[in-house]
This record gives sequence, C-alpha cells and structure tokens, in this order.
Amino acid sequence: MPGIGHKVWAVPDGYIPSWSHGPEPDMVSHEAVCILNTGDEDAHLELTVYFSDREPVGPYRIVAPARRTIHLRLNDLQEPEPIPVGKEYALVVRSDVPVVVQHSRLDTRQAENTLMTTMAFPVSE
Amino acid sequence: MPGIGHKVWAVPDGYIPSWSHGPEPDMVSHEAVCILNTGDEDAHLELTVYFSDREPVGPYRIVAPARRTIHLRLNDLQEPEPIPVGKEYALVVRSDVPVVVQHSRLDTRQAENTLMTTMAFPVSE
Amino acid sequence: MPGIGHKVWAVPDGYIPSWSHGPEPDMVSHEAVCILNTGDEDAHLELTVYFSDREPVGPYRIVAPARRTIHLRLNDLQEPEPIPVGKEYALVVRSDVPVVVQHSRLDTRQAENTLMTTMAFPVSE
Amino acid sequence: MPGIGHKVWAVPDGYIPSWSHGPEPDMVSHEAVCILNTGDEDAHLELTVYFSDREPVGPYRIVAPARRTIHLRLNDLQEPEPIPVGKEYALVVRSDVPVVVQHSRLDTRQAENTLMTTMAFPVSE
Repeated sequence: MPGIGHKVWAVPDGYIPSWSHGPEPDMVSHEAVCILNTGDEDAHLELTVYFSDREPVGPYRIVAPARRTIHLRLNDLQEPEPIPVGKEYALVVRSDVPVVVQHSRLDTRQAENTLMTTMAFPVSE
Repeated sequence: MPGIGHKVWAVPDGYIPSWSHGPEPDMVSHEAVCILNTGDEDAHLELTVYFSDREPVGPYRIVAPARRTIHLRLNDLQEPEPIPVGKEYALVVRSDVPVVVQHSRLDTRQAENTLMTTMAFPVSE
Repeated sequence: MPGIGHKVWAVPDGYIPSWSHGPEPDMVSHEAVCILNTGDEDAHLELTVYFSDREPVGPYRIVAPARRTIHLRLNDLQEPEPIPVGKEYALVVRSDVPVVVQHSRLDTRQAENTLMTTMAFPVSE
Repeated sequence: MPGIGHKVWAVPDGYIPSWSHGPEPDMVSHEAVCILNTGDEDAHLELTVYFSDREPVGPYRIVAPARRTIHLRLNDLQEPEPIPVGKEYALVVRSDVPVVVQHSRLDTRQAENTLMTTMAFPVSE
C-alpha cells in the first residue's frame, strides 16, 4: 500500500545554532528533519541544501524504511559535506514514494532551550 | 451537519521529553494531540504510532464528541501500550468523520518551559 | 478587489495560560488570533469557541477593516462571555470575505517567556 | 526549470519585539522572512506590510537569486520605511516566479530566547 503524503517537500528556514548549553546529546542545539513513511516500501530520499551565497549541495541520501519514522539530526550529515553551523540554509527533500516531512529546531544557545517546528511545504505533483 | 476538516492526519515529529521541571500537572513535559470536531456526530478516532526501529503500534481508540474539542496528552495513553518517553515517534490519526488536528509539545526539561506547535498534515481523500 | 485567503479557519489548540511573569501588558500570558484582510471590503468575522465539556459559545463578532491586520488577544473577548483561562478550547473563525488567519500563544508562566504559532487550518469551499 | 512553490504568500502575525537580551547580532529580537528559490531564474519579490491603523506600506523590493535562499531580517528593511518595532503588522510576499516562504520570530525580551515559526500561507493561482 502506498503511504500518505508527498514526494517533494521544502523548508526555507534552516539554521543550526553554533553553540549550546546543557547535557549532551539532548541539549545540543540542532535541527531535525522528521520523515514519516507509512507505506509498505522503503523510501529513498535525496536532500538538497540551499545557501545564500553559493550553489546548492547534495544529494544527501537517506532511507526511511517502510512503516517507520526517521528523525534525522541535520547536524549529523557528513556526505557530501557537513552543513555549516551558524549559517542560513534551506532544504528540499525528494522521495521516491510519498512521505510526510516536518522540520524542528532546538536552540540552546542561552541557558534555557527553545523549540520551533513547522510542517515542511508539500509540493503537489 | 458534517464537521470541517479531514479524516486522516499525520505528525512526523513526536517526542515526549523524558524529564520535567516545575509544578505538576501544568509543567510536566508532554505532547498533546488536539482534535476539533465541529460536526454533529461523534468522531471515532484511531491513532497509530510509528517508531524508528520497530513495527507501528495501535490502534489507540479515542472519541471526540460532536461539537467538542479534545486535547489529549499523548503521555497518558495506556492501551495498547504507553508511548515511550525520550524516544522519537510519529503519529497518524484516522477518524470516521472530518476533524481538524493540531500537535503541540511542552518541554520543561530545563528550568524554563518551551512550546512548539504545528497543524498536523491533512491527507486529502 | 477581493482579498486573499479563505472564509473559514479552524484552530484546535487553544489554551490561555492562567498565570504570568514579567511586565504588563507585553508579558501577560495570552493567545492572539491574527487576521489579515488584504481586500477592499471590511471583513465581518464570527468566532465560535469549542470546549471539551460543554456546547460551543459564540458568535464573538469582530471587524477586520479593509487592508488591515487585526491581532486580537483572545483573553480580551467579553461578549458573549470571556474565554476561561487554564482550560482547553478550540476556535473557528468565519468571515464574509476571504482573510488569512494565524494563531499564536505567549506563555510566561515560568520566568522566561515562550512562543508558539501556526497558521490556522483553512477550510476550502 | 521553474522552482517549486507559489508566487503569493501571506503572514498575518508580524511583530518585532522592541527590546532584547544577549550578544548582538545573534540575540537581537527579530523576525525573518525566509525565501527559497529553487528555480533557475532570479525571483523579484515585492513585500507589502499591513497595519492595524493605517494604509499598507510597500513595496519593499528584494531579489532572491536562482538556486539560493534568502533569510531577510525584517528589522533591517529601510525602503520605503522601517517596520516599527513593538507594533503588530502583517506581511504579503509577491514574487514573479514560484518560491517557498517561511516566517520566524526570535524574541529575546526576557533573559532566555524563544522561537516561533510557521510556513507562510500560500495563495493558489
């Protein structure tokens, strides 16, 4: 059965805060892209990262297995290159099967943490 | 009269923080799924919880009565099993009549609370 | 020219925190429904408030003038009755012309404030 | 290739907090409109700012280059006039090519920062 959602999603406001307070790993400032694959086939995802001052970087390849959710810390991406901290970026997620995508930030630059989240913008086919 | 909204909604970023600061019950870290049923028939809901490392769990059965809103603390679910804290999950809500669904988190792991919210992703039929 | 948006919007997660810290009026815990009317006709709005344990209350009548935005503190509504604090509710906004609706909460129950926001859910006609 | 998204987006809840705590420029209270242009043509944007008590102001002209993201601090707009702080406003973004728009606020009025974000409301053509 195909899963629910869309194959392409966009997030304009990416920003990994460059410092943190509090115990690791919970309180490390980070952003997460959360992917839900309700279908019965694995989702093969390609992330493209956009910047303000240079060409996009990607694809970052990720698998969201069938009937699973993946909460990927964007700080942890290594290939083709880490996303720089303290620098504005944007994200496009492309999948070969429908998924649902949400984006969240935990900012612990000051002593107390703060959260923000939004559903990514779904692109209709 | 049928209510407004959709019958299927998804939330990829579920996470119940595993500790709290401040007076109970207000300041217990929690997530809530908020359901609005504007119609004249009770909504019978089935929640399915998705994980990163095992098969989905559900259904969790809930009723949102006609012309009522239900703000359900996801921490409080018991049957078929509690949602583990400190572990990433995702949520799908299925209803027999149209409803509107929003998802919010209160995180009080540090001394000061922080909130995040988003409308769930509505699935078109 | 008609404005942009929709005539019916819903917000499931309403909750006015029951206490506050910090200087008034900025730091009073509150919720705001923010309405943008880009059209050339005044928008006549009716708000209906839904509860978990009793019949809906309304209409609350508001005007969003042509080419204006109204950020209405829900704490300030008086007629037909104030919205109780510390109690879950939901909101439906109906307008005679298209508008755009966003809902935000400022929670200052603890020493440091926290914010959450989401676009309301637009109902297609 | 045309980019993904829409040409018109609206944000009802604009508010630039009037004071700040913490090191500049990171911790200056601000709002940002984040624009992602995935297309191969530069996007020419016009922002219109709506108020509660006077006629809209604009256009504010911005370019989001091809394959780039722009995170524009609304506090920094100068022409035709700065957006007043501590005053409610709303925002409409119009582009000549499709873009994706998200709006975020960092509020550092109290000692600890708080964030909120939402995808802007996309207007279908």
